[in-house]
Amino acid sequence: MTTVITGAAGFVGRALARRMAAIGYRGSVRLVDRTLPPAPSSAFEAVAADLTHSASLADVLTGATCVIHLAALPGGAAEADPAASRRINLDASLDLVDLLTAARAPVRLVYASSVAVLGDHLPNPVDDLTPPLPAMVYGAHKRMVEIALADAVRRGLDAIPLRLPGIVARPAGSSGLRSAFISDVFHAARDGRPRVIPVGPAATMWLVSAEAAAVALLHATTLPQPRAAALTLPALQVTMTDLIAAIGRATGRPVPVDLVSDPDVEAQFGRLPVLRTAAADALGFVHDGDLETLVTRVLHGLARE
Amino acid sequence: MTTVITGAAGFVGRALARRMAAIGYRGSVRLVDRTLPPAPSSAFEAVAADLTHSASLADVLTGATCVIHLAALPGGAAEADPAASRRINLDASLDLVDLLTAARAPVRLVYASSVAVLGDHLPNPVDDLTPPLPAMVYGAHKRMVEIALADAVRRGLDAIPLRLPGIVARPAGSSGLRSAFISDVFHAARDGRPRVIPVGPAATMWLVSAEAAAVALLHATTLPQPRAAALTLPALQVTMTDLIAAIGRATGRPVPVDLVSDPDVEAQFGRLPVLRTAAADALGFVHDGDLETLVTRVLHGLARE
Repeated sequence: MTTVITGAAGFVGRALARRMAAIGYRGSVRLVDRTLPPAPSSAFEAVAADLTHSASLADVLTGATCVIHLAALPGGAAEADPAASRRINLDASLDLVDLLTAARAPVRLVYASSVAVLGDHLPNPVDDLTPPLPAMVYGAHKRMVEIALADAVRRGLDAIPLRLPGIVARPAGSSGLRSAFISDVFHAARDGRPRVIPVGPAATMWLVSAEAAAVALLHATTLPQPRAAALTLPALQVTMTDLIAAIGRATGRPVPVDLVSDPDVEAQFGRLPVLRTAAADALGFVHDGDLETLVTRVLHGLARE
Repeated sequence: MTTVITGAAGFVGRALARRMAAIGYRGSVRLVDRTLPPAPSSAFEAVAADLTHSASLADVLTGATCVIHLAALPGGAAEADPAASRRINLDASLDLVDLLTAARAPVRLVYASSVAVLGDHLPNPVDDLTPPLPAMVYGAHKRMVEIALADAVRRGLDAIPLRLPGIVARPAGSSGLRSAFISDVFHAARDGRPRVIPVGPAATMWLVSAEAAAVALLHATTLPQPRAAALTLPALQVTMTDLIAAIGRATGRPVPVDLVSDPDVEAQFGRLPVLRTAAADALGFVHDGDLETLVTRVLHGLARE
């Protein structure tokens, strides 16, 4: 049994590898990224490989019984360079799907899609039947891979596509995500440096901790049946006011943030309606449970870095 | 002004080129296919080129002010060879979209998508809001290109994506389409050789003549605004019983067909619900008008071949 994690040097990939080490994940684990990913267990294999090169892609998949495909160019970077997004977010993912579909050995593929596929004109509530209308390059490419996956599952691939909500807290300043301001609230609380946050107090968000995301990704490896339709993962639905208050309670001091709404950012990331995730709920996926748990997990995660 | 037609040697491409010649279409016309396409006017340029080679693709687009992109591997052939469908129906189309999006000169792209993107579990009625759930490789790749096009239009590409319904009558035995049986009814009427048709008398279909499809493709070149969302074209909604009766009236003799329903074919191509095409209707797209006109056009088309 060999589990391959692509994008293992990324924010979610590192949280996933840490959790796999912590729980003593059984079987071999191969961590893959463009630069050598950190290995939280000496039993894990770490590999530097460029998945946009077909030979490298085939190499890293050798012997895999499970692939968790996280490697992606984030949203802001994809928008700035659509051609790079096509190579990384679309073509490399389709190559991976084609290779696994053609392989004779059964391999479970867990694909990290995103709620970005839904776009920014969302009905209320959003549920499993909401038609995806991506509004950015990143979401368009993720949605295209979802469609290719649904077709590959019909033709025999064993895949579980998951739509990940906002995951906090990403490393400060490192990411190409335009939704990084949500993580900045945590960074401000931690280092005491004031931040301007481009949404108002009533902004609503769908959030999970990186730990909860890792739990969901591992849960997907254990489901008995593949899924043609992507599963939108459950998430805590919180307002910026409630988030800031919960962080303040956890740290025992006010969070030094100044909320100055940017209409574009607010429209894209700050007006999320009610989220219903019946399909994922029925399969046992869970979010952090409550805001206090999410905040505690995130602050612990930041303290460890 | 140079209009480029890809897939110009195909069934729809030839009908389109014939119509452009007949109406004295203004500007230069470049007909492109893998094999040299027939040129119905000596003023038209005919080019043999493989669009899956990026240099050839760039060559045939040189100086284009309008591109009507018909080139595709048909449904049955795509299902038999998903890798070839990816190269032709997906990758080459995305390359074309990327080239036109990157070009500085404005180019109108008319993309021939298909009602195959809708899949085979259709609500009644189907309308412009019906969520596409492709059930075949062909429809999946067409849908993926629609999503890429919507994103490219957002970023400035001038495109009109059209979803073509069933187009009759395709050349006998030549096509990789699993819906070719609809055309076989016309072939049986013309050559008097009996055919077994794999649907029952109550089978329902959405049909346009190749001539009506050509009119719609040319109409799309004239629309003032690009479209992010694909337009489902209006089509005549007919039953197999009515189609056979209308052909019999037009030819003055019974049509020698034997209807033997194949549940798979019937499920995929013979249970089409009511089709509403409000968006295309509002923009002036039309079908053949009535069944007699469609049958007359199709029989004339066959007599010319």
